[in-house]
Amino acid sequence: MTFVCPGSFDPVTNGHIDIIERASKLCDKVLVVVLINSAKVPSFTLEERVDLLQCALSGIPNVEVDSYSGLLVDYMRMKNAKVIVKGLRAVSDFEYEMQMALFHKTQEPDIETLFMTSSLKYSFLSSSLIKELARNGGKIDDFVPECIREKILNKLRGTGGAK
Amino acid sequence: MTFVCPGSFDPVTNGHIDIIERASKLCDKVLVVVLINSAKVPSFTLEERVDLLQCALSGIPNVEVDSYSGLLVDYMRMKNAKVIVKGLRAVSDFEYEMQMALFHKTQEPDIETLFMTSSLKYSFLSSSLIKELARNGGKIDDFVPECIREKILNKLRGTGGAK
Amino acid sequence: MTFVCPGSFDPVTNGHIDIIERASKLCDKVLVVVLINSAKVPSFTLEERVDLLQCALSGIPNVEVDSYSGLLVDYMRMKNAKVIVKGLRAVSDFEYEMQMALFHKTQEPDIETLFMTSSLKYSFLSSSLIKELARNGGKIDDFVPECIREKILNKLRGTGGAK
Amino acid sequence: MTFVCPGSFDPVTNGHIDIIERASKLCDKVLVVVLINSAKVPSFTLEERVDLLQCALSGIPNVEVDSYSGLLVDYMRMKNAKVIVKGLRAVSDFEYEMQMALFHKTQEPDIETLFMTSSLKYSFLSSSLIKELARNGGKIDDFVPECIREKILNKLRGTGGAK
Amino acid sequence: MTFVCPGSFDPVTNGHIDIIERASKLCDKVLVVVLINSAKVPSFTLEERVDLLQCALSGIPNVEVDSYSGLLVDYMRMKNAKVIVKGLRAVSDFEYEMQMALFHKTQEPDIETLFMTSSLKYSFLSSSLIKELARNGGKIDDFVPECIREKILNKLRGTGGAK
Amino acid sequence: MTFVCPGSFDPVTNGHIDIIERASKLCDKVLVVVLINSAKVPSFTLEERVDLLQCALSGIPNVEVDSYSGLLVDYMRMKNAKVIVKGLRAVSDFEYEMQMALFHKTQEPDIETLFMTSSLKYSFLSSSLIKELARNGGKIDDFVPECIREKILNKLRGTGGAK
Repeated sequence: MTFVCPGSFDPVTNGHIDIIERASKLCDKVLVVVLINSAKVPSFTLEERVDLLQCALSGIPNVEVDSYSGLLVDYMRMKNAKVIVKGLRAVSDFEYEMQMALFHKTQEPDIETLFMTSSLKYSFLSSSLIKELARNGGKIDDFVPECIREKILNKLRGTGGAK
Repeated sequence: MTFVCPGSFDPVTNGHIDIIERASKLCDKVLVVVLINSAKVPSFTLEERVDLLQCALSGIPNVEVDSYSGLLVDYMRMKNAKVIVKGLRAVSDFEYEMQMALFHKTQEPDIETLFMTSSLKYSFLSSSLIKELARNGGKIDDFVPECIREKILNKLRGTGGAK
Repeated sequence: MTFVCPGSFDPVTNGHIDIIERASKLCDKVLVVVLINSAKVPSFTLEERVDLLQCALSGIPNVEVDSYSGLLVDYMRMKNAKVIVKGLRAVSDFEYEMQMALFHKTQEPDIETLFMTSSLKYSFLSSSLIKELARNGGKIDDFVPECIREKILNKLRGTGGAK
Repeated sequence: MTFVCPGSFDPVTNGHIDIIERASKLCDKVLVVVLINSAKVPSFTLEERVDLLQCALSGIPNVEVDSYSGLLVDYMRMKNAKVIVKGLRAVSDFEYEMQMALFHKTQEPDIETLFMTSSLKYSFLSSSLIKELARNGGKIDDFVPECIREKILNKLRGTGGAK
Repeated sequence: MTFVCPGSFDPVTNGHIDIIERASKLCDKVLVVVLINSAKVPSFTLEERVDLLQCALSGIPNVEVDSYSGLLVDYMRMKNAKVIVKGLRAVSDFEYEMQMALFHKTQEPDIETLFMTSSLKYSFLSSSLIKELARNGGKIDDFVPECIREKILNKLRGTGGAK
Repeated sequence: MTFVCPGSFDPVTNGHIDIIERASKLCDKVLVVVLINSAKVPSFTLEERVDLLQCALSGIPNVEVDSYSGLLVDYMRMKNAKVIVKGLRAVSDFEYEMQMALFHKTQEPDIETLFMTSSLKYSFLSSSLIKELARNGGKIDDFVPECIREKILNKLRGTGGAK
């Protein structure tokens, strides 16, 4: 069975990686897909986000990184995949994701969304926090894998502050 | 008694129409008012939003569509109306709307806000979701009335994707 | 139009009275009905709860107090009433009440539930708090009308404490 | 892979069955286990709850009904199972279940909890609601399978009301 | 300044101790008070709960354990204390505690309630969970201090299960 | 002891002032710090926000206004301060702030965050509401101190409306 793990991954964090790794043990393959969301302007380009994911996930054999410009439900159809997997940190995450899960079911009744809870140590972690830290000279060592740390810092260092 | 149903309606959805129709059975007239909110840039112009509402609501006799640039409480005073009606889909809707209801009462103690719950089948529906679908070639047939479908698709088709 | 305001009212508080009074201005009659809930053992008997409500609400002309052993939806049918009105204090109230509103609509599609928010000064008030205060010698003057204060205190005084 | 679906099932509802059926398509076997919870006095005996589950789930081939007096984590170890599956209806469900998922992970790091959202039409359904209906002469036809309806009604009919 | 930390402590957990210890660094003295709550029947007697607290907190010099049968606000007056400190684990904790804080302020405007968040590793921990574990032969080593472990296990072991 | 009260204060409201004043009674000094948040474009410049705070807080002796471009945790280190104080109005505030409190503790284990609840009369008040009112000719008299009212109105009057 293939699980699809969608997101904007702007950038990927240890919280995402934790969910993806745990999900990869429950299925044959995890397709991690960067969705292009026209409503938000990302900090990293699509290519950068895919590149960071590929570096970060290279140690997990049954994971593949992809990107898609369109609706998740159309991506699922194209890949003939039936299961979406999402991590949940908090109540506010949950309500939005529950609405999306219900929506996806109206579009394609066979699609199931499985939610996993973030590990405690990542329960406060988000892409926004990583960016806030990187922009302001904070340490991100505990929050992203070593192999992508410099790429993130180089992109964001010095872009914060007194605008 | 007149109920005022405010919103940005960017664009109107079947979820809005469901609330307005149910509310129209509980009062003499529902005034549906597009409020101009300086904090958000809408996808549809004011004229388009009013036009979509008028098409969508033409079948309900005691509904009138209006627009207003200013505070809801001033609109209520101008119309000598005392009752606001709002649909609630989820807990996160509720908290913000409860704060607004309390605020309106401090401004004009006679104003009451009545909340109705969205019908189950629209509990995940939002204007943002309609736009996301329309931008990405998704079907919106179940989510907006037929008479406005083309207008929405023509406006938004092809504006999503790889920005 | 008749609004039905159901509850266990064990006992009625100023928070309930505030909602009932505000609702009474929006309709022809408010039917306040003490529902007999087999899942909770009340502190006041049915007769006492009805009596306290009648004292507390005697100043509002278009309010009638009733009691019912059965389902709210059957009571609505018997009275040919279509509108339930409920006060909401907090997010946790809301989620349960939203589920009940959805349930009632599956049973009788014409039934609407209107939610009103508690006035700020009663946003923390509950029947349990009144009882906790009365049992432990606290003052309940600000939380129930004068005409029922002694009845509540006489019933509960000295029943709390070191069990 | 085996999924374990724990609960008190007092009694099983169509909401539970919906989750179990959907989960059964994602794994080799679903073990539905009635946990004996010393903190709550159930309305149905353990034998009755297991019997109702077996009737209700007889149409799903890869489901097995079991019961256990003890901790879920010990049951998982005994069965050598690694995946718990739970349905979520609402935000209030989620917070408690997220705490339990985190707790189970501290006890046995390999255990994963997967959450699925209830289908819209069952989003307000609970065992308590079934019992409230059955006790008060309400119809439960839409909320439990036909094969167990009479058993539930016979047990509970007439036990509600004027206590 | 004296902080008052109220609770039922039935029994004390490492989560409570963590909050009390952290609070003790912010004030001159923490008064930990077991409140006798007539609405709940505790598993441990008042004497046992005080004894467990005294063992568990003996290493923190500026902490004193007390008990009180009555309202927290009256206890605060008696001790001439102005600050209540409470730990929060989750959103559901918060809403109730916020209502109590607002209530206390209506009773005694000088009283402030300070909330601290539980440490991550105790964010799922509760007295109920300890009892559930102890009753069912689970390990509680990580959740209560060593000095009170046996007392808790002796009291509860074997009281769970097939009732 | 020094409490640090961080925020964007865009602009300060009576809700902020209420929290700062109450906090000032619990410590030696409150450092109110305007944090420069690169993710949001403020309506008031940094200088204006600091100026409004200084006017609004001039009556509280042990309060000092500051600004900082960087991470709160670095500001705390620089000032050798250990306590953050934040006001909470609602559940949605709480979840985000709890995540930040947990994050700050991972960065600097000695840092504690104390949460205080907004006074009831300010429970719906926010900087956004002030701006919405000011932009649309509403009265802000009850929501900001008199000494800064004109400054706010002059800046924002006429900037709302039909864009």
